[in-house]
This record gives sequence, C-alpha cells and structure tokens, in this order.
Amino acid sequence: MTIAICPGSFDPVTNGHLDIIERTAAIFDKVIVAVLENPSKEPLFSAAERRYFLQKVLAHLPNVEVEYFQGLLVNYAKSKDAKVIVKGLRAISDFESEFQMALTNKKMNPEIETIFMMTANEYSFLSSSMVKELVYFGGNPEGFVPPLVVAALEEKLGRRRSGK
Amino acid sequence: MTIAICPGSFDPVTNGHLDIIERTAAIFDKVIVAVLENPSKEPLFSAAERRYFLQKVLAHLPNVEVEYFQGLLVNYAKSKDAKVIVKGLRAISDFESEFQMALTNKKMNPEIETIFMMTANEYSFLSSSMVKELVYFGGNPEGFVPPLVVAALEEKLGRRRSGK
Amino acid sequence: MTIAICPGSFDPVTNGHLDIIERTAAIFDKVIVAVLENPSKEPLFSAAERRYFLQKVLAHLPNVEVEYFQGLLVNYAKSKDAKVIVKGLRAISDFESEFQMALTNKKMNPEIETIFMMTANEYSFLSSSMVKELVYFGGNPEGFVPPLVVAALEEKLGRRRSGK
Amino acid sequence: MTIAICPGSFDPVTNGHLDIIERTAAIFDKVIVAVLENPSKEPLFSAAERRYFLQKVLAHLPNVEVEYFQGLLVNYAKSKDAKVIVKGLRAISDFESEFQMALTNKKMNPEIETIFMMTANEYSFLSSSMVKELVYFGGNPEGFVPPLVVAALEEKLGRRRSGK
Amino acid sequence: MTIAICPGSFDPVTNGHLDIIERTAAIFDKVIVAVLENPSKEPLFSAAERRYFLQKVLAHLPNVEVEYFQGLLVNYAKSKDAKVIVKGLRAISDFESEFQMALTNKKMNPEIETIFMMTANEYSFLSSSMVKELVYFGGNPEGFVPPLVVAALEEKLGRRRSGK
Amino acid sequence: MTIAICPGSFDPVTNGHLDIIERTAAIFDKVIVAVLENPSKEPLFSAAERRYFLQKVLAHLPNVEVEYFQGLLVNYAKSKDAKVIVKGLRAISDFESEFQMALTNKKMNPEIETIFMMTANEYSFLSSSMVKELVYFGGNPEGFVPPLVVAALEEKLGRRRSGK
Repeated sequence: MTIAICPGSFDPVTNGHLDIIERTAAIFDKVIVAVLENPSKEPLFSAAERRYFLQKVLAHLPNVEVEYFQGLLVNYAKSKDAKVIVKGLRAISDFESEFQMALTNKKMNPEIETIFMMTANEYSFLSSSMVKELVYFGGNPEGFVPPLVVAALEEKLGRRRSGK
Repeated sequence: MTIAICPGSFDPVTNGHLDIIERTAAIFDKVIVAVLENPSKEPLFSAAERRYFLQKVLAHLPNVEVEYFQGLLVNYAKSKDAKVIVKGLRAISDFESEFQMALTNKKMNPEIETIFMMTANEYSFLSSSMVKELVYFGGNPEGFVPPLVVAALEEKLGRRRSGK
Repeated sequence: MTIAICPGSFDPVTNGHLDIIERTAAIFDKVIVAVLENPSKEPLFSAAERRYFLQKVLAHLPNVEVEYFQGLLVNYAKSKDAKVIVKGLRAISDFESEFQMALTNKKMNPEIETIFMMTANEYSFLSSSMVKELVYFGGNPEGFVPPLVVAALEEKLGRRRSGK
Repeated sequence: MTIAICPGSFDPVTNGHLDIIERTAAIFDKVIVAVLENPSKEPLFSAAERRYFLQKVLAHLPNVEVEYFQGLLVNYAKSKDAKVIVKGLRAISDFESEFQMALTNKKMNPEIETIFMMTANEYSFLSSSMVKELVYFGGNPEGFVPPLVVAALEEKLGRRRSGK
Repeated sequence: MTIAICPGSFDPVTNGHLDIIERTAAIFDKVIVAVLENPSKEPLFSAAERRYFLQKVLAHLPNVEVEYFQGLLVNYAKSKDAKVIVKGLRAISDFESEFQMALTNKKMNPEIETIFMMTANEYSFLSSSMVKELVYFGGNPEGFVPPLVVAALEEKLGRRRSGK
Repeated sequence: MTIAICPGSFDPVTNGHLDIIERTAAIFDKVIVAVLENPSKEPLFSAAERRYFLQKVLAHLPNVEVEYFQGLLVNYAKSKDAKVIVKGLRAISDFESEFQMALTNKKMNPEIETIFMMTANEYSFLSSSMVKELVYFGGNPEGFVPPLVVAALEEKLGRRRSGK
C-alpha cells in the first residue's frame, strides 16, 4: 500500500488544493492531508479551523485523512510510512521554491519521493493569500474556495476590514 | 494495481532517465517504459536499439517493462490501463513544454494523470542531445550514460565525426 | 481613431487567437488581423486559406479586417497608420521572444507601440503547432480551433498521416 | 472614448513609470493614474506627496489625470468607466505576479481588460524599492527618478540614514 | 593585480559560498570576502561571528581576506581598488535580483564589473535561510555548511527551538 | 597571467558581443576571441569573414587575439592555457542553455572556469540571428552591428532577399 502526503498551510483550503488532493486520491491507496502548524507564523484560521474545512470538503473521499504536522516534513512522512509527498505546481510561480524544497527533502531522506502535479488550468492563478487579499478588499471569493470557506472568510476579514 | 508510464525518445537513455525510472518503480506497482517511434524524426539509434539498451540497464527491476509506442500518448496509456504518466523535470528547461503537454493530455483524457519528478541534482544538466553533441566533438560521455551506451555512442558518432 | 494590428501566422487560427482578437476589438476603434506571408516557411495552410478561416470566424466583428503582410511588421503598421501592435502572452512560453521582438520593433520605429494581453486561462497551453501535432497523431482538436478549422485540419493531416 | 488606468503605489514615481504613462497617453483617449492608498502598508511618501509628484511630472500631458484609489482595482476601474488597465512588465521579474493579478481581475470583472507594455530597455532594472535602497545607502538616484523626486528622496532618506 | 570582491551576508557561510570563493581565488590575484553589516536587518550571527567562520574555513587560501562592508557595494569596491564583483547564480532563483543589482551597480560605477559563476550542481538548492529553517525544524545541516558552523547553528537555533 | 576565452559563432559580430569582449579585456591579462568552425552548420559568413570583422573592430585592444576553434571548447581552452571562459547573458533567454553548457564543461574539465557577464542594457534584445532576420526583411541594422558589418550584411542578405 502506497501512502501519499499532501502537505500545506491550507489557510484556507482553495479549490486548487481540492483539485490536487482529489487527483492524488485517484492514484494512491491512501492520502494524508497534512496541515502545517507553524508556531512562528500567524495564520488567518487556526489549525483546528483549517483541518475542519478540509475534513468537511474531503468527506466524500474514503482514502483521505486530514492531520496536523510540525517540524521537518520528511520526518513526519517517515513516521506515517508515507513514501510520496505530492505538491501542486502553478505555472512558474511555485517552481523554484518547490524545486529547492524537493532537493532538500531528498537529501534529508532519499527514500521519500516528492512528485508534482500541474495545477488545473482554471486554478493556475489561485492562492490562499490572493483569496485573502481579494476578500479583504471587498471582492467575492465564490468559485475560488468551497462554499463553507466563503462564509468563514467573509466573517473573519469583513470584520477586520471594517476595523472592528 | 496502479500502472505508470515513463515515455520518451531515449535516443539514447541517459543516467538521468534511469534515475527517474528507478524512482518511479519504487512507488508504483508496474512501470511501462514507452519508447517513442516517431516516423517523422530521424533518431541516432533505431527504436530496437533504444529498447535494447533500456531492457539491459533496467533488467534488475522486476516491475518494469520496455515497449514501443506511436501516436497520442494518452491513447497508448489508456490501451495499457495506465493511470499515470511520469516525466522528469530539469530545472526550468523542461518546464514550459511539459506544462503544455500535461494540460493538453489532461484535456484529451482527464482520467490519465501526469506527474513530475525533479531530476536528481547530478543529472540536472543532462540530456540525450547534449550527450550526442559531446561525443560528436570528441568528449567522453562516461558518467552521463550507462557503460553499454558509451561504447555504442562512440561507435556511431566516432565514425560520423571522421566523416566515414 | 486608434488602429491596432494583430499579427501572426495563424496556421491555423486557434480559439486562443480568436479570444485575443475579440478582446482587442473591444478596446480599439479598428483592428487589422495581419496574416504573415513568409516565403521562407512552408505553412500547412496557404495564406489564402488562413485568411479565409479568419474572415469567417471574425465576421461578427464589424471593426475587424483581415489582410496579408510581408517584411518588417513596423513598416507594415506604419503603412496602415496603426499605432498599436497587439500580441497574446501564454504563461512564460512566449515571454522571451516577444520581449525581444517588442524591443527590436521599438528601436526600428518608436512611434509604434506593442502591447500584450494574457491569454485566457483555458487557452494557455494552446498553439497552432500543438494542434497540428495533435491532429497528426490522431487526436481530436474540437474545443481548440473553430469548427470549420477542425474539418480542414482533419482533411489535410489525416491524408498526410495515412501517407497519401 | 476609451479610458485607461495606470495603477500603482508610485512610492515614489520613477522614470520607468513615467515612460509607461506617456506611452499609454499616446494610444488612449484618457489616462487615469491611480495612486494606491493601502491602509495596511507604510509608504515612504504619503498618498498626497505621491500624487503631487505625479501631477508635477505629468503636467505636460493634457489627457492624464492623477487620482487616489482604494479597494479592488476592477471596482475602481468600473466606477471610472475605464475599460483598460495598463501595467509595465520588466523582463521576468514582474511577469508571474502580474499574470496572477490579470487573471484574477478578469474573473472578477471580464469587461475590464488588462494590457501590458514592456518597460523601456534603459529602465528594465528600475523599481521604487531599488531607488529607495540606493538612496538609503548613499547612492545618487539621478537618472532613475524625476529631479523633484531626487531632492525629496534625499531629504527623507538622508535624515533616516543619519539616524535622526 | 586584479582584486575581486565576493560580497554577502554569509549568515552563516554555506558550502555553496565556499565553492564560489575558492573558484574565484583560483582565477584572480586577490579576493576580498566582504561581510555585509546591514544595520536594518537582524542576522542570526553577528558580523564578528560571520567573519570568524569565514576566516577559519578560508585559512588555506593565501590570497583571500575577509572584511566588513556597509553602504553601497560599488563605493566599497572602489575604496579597495577592486575591479570585479563575483556572485554565484543558483538555477533561476537568483537570476532576476542579481540581474537588477548588476545593472544598477554598472550605472553607479561603470568601471566595476560584476561577473557570475554557476553554483556547483550539488549546492544548487542551498541557501543560508534554507539551512537555518532546516536546523530550526530539527534537521541536520551536515554537508550543507562547514563543521564549525554545524555546531554553532545547533547551539543558536536549538535553544530558540526549545523556546529558551 | 590569466588568459580568458570569449567563444562564439559571431555570425556576424554584434555590438553586444563587442561590449562583452571589451569588458573582458579590462579584467583579464589576455583575451582569445574564439570563432567556432562548426562543419555541420551553414553560417551566413565564412569563418574567415567572421574572424576578419572581429579583428578589425577589436584592433584597438592590444591584449585581444582572434582565432578559430573546433571540437570541445574545454579542450581548446586547455590547449591555450586559458583558465576562464567568458559568456554574455541576456535576460533569461540564454540562461538555461548556458547553465547546461557551463555544468557540462565543468564536468569535462573542472580546472576551467566559466564566468558570465550581464549583457549591457541597450543590447539585451540583440542577437546575430535577430539582426540577420531584420536585414532580410529590409530593416536597417545600424546601431546593432559595427559599420563594416552593416555593409556586409546588406550585400549578402539584400541579394538573397531579391532572390538573386
């Protein structure tokens, strides 16, 4: 059984993330979506909120689990018996940093393989930070994030926008 | 059982190709190395020679087969019940054309997934055409291609170099 | 009145070309689609065929004309009193050569401005040569080119494919 | 009448910005230079100062106005009846983020078109932040920014440099 | 006698930096490794620590000196009678910003030349910040930095990691 | 004494080439401009013509010699006791292939170092093939190539253009 990990901040999950996770679930036996808890960053949504959104929108995929992780990704992967890390690539914008990370991870643990999928065309411009900025400036994120995230974004950022 | 395809011209196979195929064989149940027969191109080695080199150097991998293919890759993949196409990416040089091909293949058959692996550091500059040019100008391709290909290259290109 | 030129080989016109031309026609008073006659290249479709396809699929746009051109684009633009050349950019694949051409044209005639539009997401992987290759290998180009071009491609390339 | 918008922080305006604005003014009927007021960023120059510099150095162009804007650019453009947003592209450094923004804006309002101009050769390395860094470390920004901005930069940053 | 400068933050020095400095020392008469003291940034290691590491690991190269610098690099180079600035390039990740800096420096002082070397293959993914992040998350930086830096990193970041 | 090599086809030499050679001559003791004789390519100008142009336009530089070379560049460099190969980089368009060649050369002979200079701003779009295309289509190459090359281009390509 091959276990694959889809790591990320998912702050919040976008339709682009979902697309990558669903395609990963179609080719590997088991997928662990790993939500990064990074104590040195301040996410918009707590790790618990981010995991909750993922669990809700991935509930239809029986071979997908959502978990937290901290520290080095390759160590986490090893602890889960995962052989594969899956990342989405959007045009060139992710290429360099992903390349650097994949080579570093390979050096840290050569038995864990990083593979890449091209982000679907319609999500090639999509990122969590772009969605947050859009909502902050009053834009409508429908079509970019799942419906339950649309509401959550508006609540968090609408309040911030109006300075409350 | 997930079947993956590693397509290419392999004219000739390089150590960079081998690295990608071996890593693919470690994460998928079965790997088909598909040698492109393109009637409109003139390869240095015939399809039979290219397949022979691959069979020899991949003989230690029980879950790898070497075959020929023509026409559209997604059609070939479907005929083999393969769900996954695996390509190696070298820094930026392959990125654009691979991106275009992956999106086109996705449009032709959304059920077949293209995934990418970063070429190992030590092969990031390696390509079949670079090796052929190197040998043509009198360079030594050891370390770039498997030993049996070193000899074959020298025989074909050494003769051409001396104008015979 | 500002006249804009959309130059290209259009061998054949794709839905990506149409998208750029339609968007150009929405912001400039008059648009000249200029079909390149390059005596040193062998197109699949003759200049007359390429112009005919464009005229048919652009017939709904009253401010668009389709013409031939040869030689230096800036000279042609000047002869037509056009101030603007419009090019589509697909992710990074066109960027470098377009950049070089725009700077060269600027040097040849600083009064003619080259502007760029990002190709729509759904056509970002699309090119005339990709479509021709696809059809040559037996793929279906529907959704990539206008319907009348689908038929013409199949006629030309299907015959070539079967070696007649 | 086609109205085009040249948006930016202009903190401060550089000769590269001026070049793009002048070329835009040559091909569109009316140009609105839109100075971004972003409450979450701390610019070196206040929005009023940035607008003043622009008004002074653009005074010779009768079809150019300088205004403030906040919030989503496409909403602002619509409120001004502008059909076109014009951005300058410098080699590859701006390409990715501009691509992302253009596609996002297109999704938010498909009637507003983003077009790009290649930055003139001699300004291809120029950015407001580079100029600020240069002056901060004691360099002379003449030739990079208009003369009245040279003096203003020296006053602001010279003081900061000497720790007062 | 041609004097070359290798400038950087070196926070801390990596094996990639050492490779570039050693190759520079092989082609120029004298090399000054210039440690940037930037009052507006908070490095992990003090300038004195960074210089000490460099002096230790470069002690075998008689034509290399390690010094501090502040302010504009071209001014510093001139004060040292250096004609050449040497920078390492890693794949595309450094290209754009290095290009911008080289052109700016050229404009500030055309007599000082910036030259580039490709980072050796095995260090192409290596950066000081990547190493710091790796150690912060519990990874082992051996092979990435010289042995005396391994110990120093663990001491500084291990403490920070455990929140002391 | 450090000897540097500036290799190229120089078919024909452009002002961008001259800029790189002059800057190289300012930092190295001796510079060998090495004109590639590639039997498998058909240049516009013969090797003798290309060398003659270079000798004429470089006559003012006493430490520059113009020679022919064939075969592997690193072997040629070694035969000339040259330690350094100098290449010009134009924005991103040369980066990838230069990167690949530099790494290959390093592998073939680690004692020969390849260094890069950024092409001056005003030549960043310039290449021999662009100039040839320009003249072929009737454009004026003044400012792109030295005056004696302007005449030679017009003679060769003007004749070809008019089909004689």
